[in-house]
Amino acid sequence: MKALEEKILKEGQVRPGHILKVDGFLNHQIDIDFINEIGKEFYRLFGNKPVTKILTVEASGIGIACITAQYFHVPVVFAKKAQSLNLDGSLYTAKVQSYTHNRVYDVILSKKFLKPEDHVLIIDDFLANGCAVNGLLDIIEAAGASVEGVGIVIEKGFQSGGRDIRARGIDVKSLAIIKSMSDDSIEFVEQES
Amino acid sequence: MKALEEKILKEGQVRPGHILKVDGFLNHQIDIDFINEIGKEFYRLFGNKPVTKILTVEASGIGIACITAQYFHVPVVFAKKAQSLNLDGSLYTAKVQSYTHNRVYDVILSKKFLKPEDHVLIIDDFLANGCAVNGLLDIIEAAGASVEGVGIVIEKGFQSGGRDIRARGIDVKSLAIIKSMSDDSIEFVEQES
Repeated sequence: MKALEEKILKEGQVRPGHILKVDGFLNHQIDIDFINEIGKEFYRLFGNKPVTKILTVEASGIGIACITAQYFHVPVVFAKKAQSLNLDGSLYTAKVQSYTHNRVYDVILSKKFLKPEDHVLIIDDFLANGCAVNGLLDIIEAAGASVEGVGIVIEKGFQSGGRDIRARGIDVKSLAIIKSMSDDSIEFVEQES
Repeated sequence: MKALEEKILKEGQVRPGHILKVDGFLNHQIDIDFINEIGKEFYRLFGNKPVTKILTVEASGIGIACITAQYFHVPVVFAKKAQSLNLDGSLYTAKVQSYTHNRVYDVILSKKFLKPEDHVLIIDDFLANGCAVNGLLDIIEAAGASVEGVGIVIEKGFQSGGRDIRARGIDVKSLAIIKSMSDDSIEFVEQES
């Protein structure tokens, strides 16, 4: 998605440890009009699938998933990162290694919100080593639901997550794939539009 | 908001400790078409104010804030609950007591996303003892920005948060205010429409 690549080049900042800061429009401040363009693009890419639910994980995936879900007219369900007094009943859990937080945490989803008849589109802001998406895929598998695809805003193509998940036959589409990045340049993998 | 009261009566579940579960449409699964009606209502209530930014706190406020922001055409900024490797630079912090998680945590906001010239609308899912909103108000004050109002989906009117914040002259509007609730009934405070 050309507009996204341009926005990353203009506003993104590369930090040590392969961190790309895009907190001005994606995951701290959210540029809603721009995220709407991202939502439309996900609908263009996955709108032909029989999606019944969009699944993401708190926190930075939620806004993108909600804006995207408007085009699909389906509910969003987000996996939570910590056990809350407010979550009871049967839960799906999966372990996720956070790259940016440098720790392992549990993600939790109430069983009542994912059923075998559901067709699920996963939406998230970043895909790097793939741990968050793999945790969500584990939950979908435990529920006996179907995976229709994975829509990612920015994939770090130099880490193995996207390659590994595609190798399992899952339809992963990333709106921008970073081939390499350094202090003074960011290069993208060319994609068919 | 009549449709919201009806939805709470139909889908809400009262749990011990004054907990109202509305996780089927508001804060775990999100009914996007319904949240759009909520966003339109917030715009009806606050659309005459010179709002430049919508502020919320992760995680359950994000979806509602993003959908609402579409009507205002302003960015969302969400305060984060934990220090991340991905947050650097100057930060505003405030302490928040979580009722549902039963602990105190820090919320953090990058200084670059809130400036003295900003006019801020706070949006959140619940208002009970008011700690989350008070933390956000502290951050707005520290930034020297203006508070244009606080839009809440569900206020627990039997707890003191809403009363205390209104007493400070802040324009708090809650789409449903619960007067009392028990296992078998939920009563609302009547509001002008």
